[in-house]
This record gives sequence, C-alpha cells and structure tokens, in this order.
Amino acid sequence: MYPVCEELNVTMFINEKKFITFMCTPDNLKELAIGHLFTRNLIEDIDDIDSIRVCNTLKNIYILSEFISIDEDFSLNTVLSSACGSSPIFNLKNNKILESKTLFNIKKLKDATIKMFELAKKHKKTGGMHSCAAYNNKRDIISIEDVGRHNAVDKIIGVCLSKNYDFENSAIISTGRISTDIILKCIGARIPVVITRSIPTTSALELAKQNGITVIGRIMAREPIIYLNEARISK
Amino acid sequence: MYPVCEELNVTMFINEKKFITFMCTPDNLKELAIGHLFTRNLIEDIDDIDSIRVCNTLKNIYILSEFISIDEDFSLNTVLSSACGSSPIFNLKNNKILESKTLFNIKKLKDATIKMFELAKKHKKTGGMHSCAAYNNKRDIISIEDVGRHNAVDKIIGVCLSKNYDFENSAIISTGRISTDIILKCIGARIPVVITRSIPTTSALELAKQNGITVIGRIMAREPIIYLNEARISK
Repeated sequence: MYPVCEELNVTMFINEKKFITFMCTPDNLKELAIGHLFTRNLIEDIDDIDSIRVCNTLKNIYILSEFISIDEDFSLNTVLSSACGSSPIFNLKNNKILESKTLFNIKKLKDATIKMFELAKKHKKTGGMHSCAAYNNKRDIISIEDVGRHNAVDKIIGVCLSKNYDFENSAIISTGRISTDIILKCIGARIPVVITRSIPTTSALELAKQNGITVIGRIMAREPIIYLNEARISK
Repeated sequence: MYPVCEELNVTMFINEKKFITFMCTPDNLKELAIGHLFTRNLIEDIDDIDSIRVCNTLKNIYILSEFISIDEDFSLNTVLSSACGSSPIFNLKNNKILESKTLFNIKKLKDATIKMFELAKKHKKTGGMHSCAAYNNKRDIISIEDVGRHNAVDKIIGVCLSKNYDFENSAIISTGRISTDIILKCIGARIPVVITRSIPTTSALELAKQNGITVIGRIMAREPIIYLNEARISK
C-alpha cells in the first residue's frame, strides 16, 4: 500500500444553509466545525451551538445555532490565501490587542513540539500530513493532524474549546508555515503565541505585530527565532 | 535579518470587476493571472486576454478580455481546499480523458527535480517557499517559486503558455503535496504527468484516475512511487 494522505470534501451546513466545504482529513469533524466557527468569530463559545451532527458518511456536518446568521461578510469568494483560503481578510474591526502576560519557556515549547511529533501517527505513516498542538504551562499538550495546516489549527482550537482551555494563556504549535490566515485564526481565538517549525510570511508578521501576537519560527533549530513580542518568552 | 516568506494580497480585476485576491509572492504576477485563468478554463489561450496590467504597487492586476464573463459558477465561496482553496470542485463536465502517449524517463524527471531545487533561490534563502517546474523532453526545464503551492503551479503554467509550451507532452514537478486542487489545475491545462517530492491525497488520486493523469510521489527517493498510469514512465 503506497503512502497517501486521506482527503475528503466535507460540507458544513448552518441552519440548513450550505456554508462551506472543507477539503480535509475526515476525523475530528465536530472539532473542525467548532474551531472554524470560533476562529471566524461566528460563535463566542461552544454553547452558542445548539446542535452539531456529523452524518455517517462523514460527508456533511449539520450545525444549528440561533447565534449565527450568515451574511455576505463571511463569503470567501474573493479571497485566495497562500495555502489555505480559509480566513476572510477583514472582519477585525472590533479587535483588541492581545495583552496576555503569561511567560512561556522556550525549552518547554521545544519539548512540546517534540511531543507533538511523537503523537503524529499519520505523519509517521505517510510523511505528508500537518500537525498542530496546543500548549499551556499547566496542562498536558494536546495535538491533532490534518492534511491541511489551517484545518489542523481549526481542529486543535475546537478540541481546546471543548476542554475549556484558557486561550489567552496558551500557545499554538504548527508544522506549517505561518501565513496570514493562521494569524487570523489565532486573533479570532485570542491565542498570544504562535510557533512553527517553518517560518512566517511577511504579511503574517505585520498582522501579528498589529495584534500583539508572539511569533516563533524554526522552533526545532538550536536557536529558534523569536520574530515578535519576545517579552512573553523566557530562555 | 530573519528569514521570512514574502506574502502580499494581490487582487485581480476582470473587466473592471473584482475577481479574486491571491495571497502570494509578488513576482511573476502576469504569469500568475494568466495561469490561474487558464487552469480554471476561463481562457483557452493567452490570446483570449486583450490586455493585462499590473499596477506599480503590485497590489492589483487588471485584465481585460471579451472572452471572460464572470458568473456564479466560478465563485469559491463554498469551497475550502486542504491547502489552497484555489480551485472550484466542479466545472469538469466537458472534460476528456488525457490520452497523451509521451514517454518520460524517471531518471530524467529526477534530474529535472534536482535542477528545480538548484534554481530555487528564495527557498535557499528562507527555507519556506514552494517551487514548481515544467519539464518537456525537448526543452529546458523552467521553474518558479511562490509562498503557495497552487500559486506556483499557476505561475509555471502561465510561463509555459507565454512560451507556447506543448502541455500534452509536459510534466509538472512540485515541492508540495498533490491535493485535489493541484490535479484540477493540471486537468484544466491538459498536463498528463504530475510529480511531487511529497505524496498525493486520496481524492487527488481518485480525480487523477478519472482523468487519465500520471501521478508520481517521493520523486527524490531511491524508488519514486508511480501511483497511476505507469505506462507513460520509462525506467
């Protein structure tokens, strides 16, 4: 059996209206849906969803919520992101700068990344998957995999929401490049620290700067690069 | 200076109507536009474009074409691809199976991949870029880079179009995973062979099978994997 990444088109319906089709790895679909709605500021909390149901074929996710009204603002039809297309490049008008004072130790963040790779079973099997992990000084690391890096971020945020994670004291670790859309997701979830084994893009850094987010690249290198807001990182 | 990938939002207008925003590396923007329109079957040839202009700030691309009429069919607002979001997952109704009889030698394809990496200047500098190359038995390899793998594919196809490449006798080599949207682009351009240093996704393989496209993964490994349509590959 040759290595392949599982990819399926999964459509999310909100209040019986077709909302979006994810091209994703068909597991943790509830978390994907929850995380996606949360990072796009369509819900404020998991309780804003009245019901969530994934059909047996894994082809459809059905969301009922009286809090979500879909209007044109959330359309993606004119946005094509560098490797995602998942986040609208607007809708940040009511945002406050992230002011989390939590201190993270760089060695512990690197250990968490190593742990993330240890947990990445699909990656070990195929070599072509993305991983994402959430790290909090007080809790165990949790991690997840998906064929798409933005799906992996949505899924981990969905898992964190269901475990009642305190986002303002958490860091997100990703195997993928940090592009604009990943920063937008972290702004949406109020996560102050974003880490990658790769590097960020110029516009991701600009957006992170405007919103007070710490960005760390090349986390697995001997000297990880802290691009922005170093005050949150201890050595 | 820390390593970063340049990423800019570049909006393409068609006949004065806003069409799409690329999050991309802001070079070869004309080729990006041409390749994108071609792979989406919006133009049949480069001559279908009456004029193309990139503004000095690199923020906008203006296309005039009497052949393109934008209708709802081309909207992306319900599609979110695994790592792109660039290709609509429809609009294949008039497609014919690719029947190119050209034979490609696997060693030559590997040499072309090595050449692609040699030419990848931005990748060498930052470590976080994608490359794409076009290979034809009779012509020099051409290659290009972008922060997004699907942009890189669009750009190389745009370059090939402007050099009058014979797509049905060409192969595309990419550093990125082969997901559905990359196969859709190759179907749009009638390219029979798609090669990656990574692996394909399940739905990409299914689509490639339906359309007669050869898929090769792990091209840099000692034994590259020919997933489909091996008859076009000589050893």
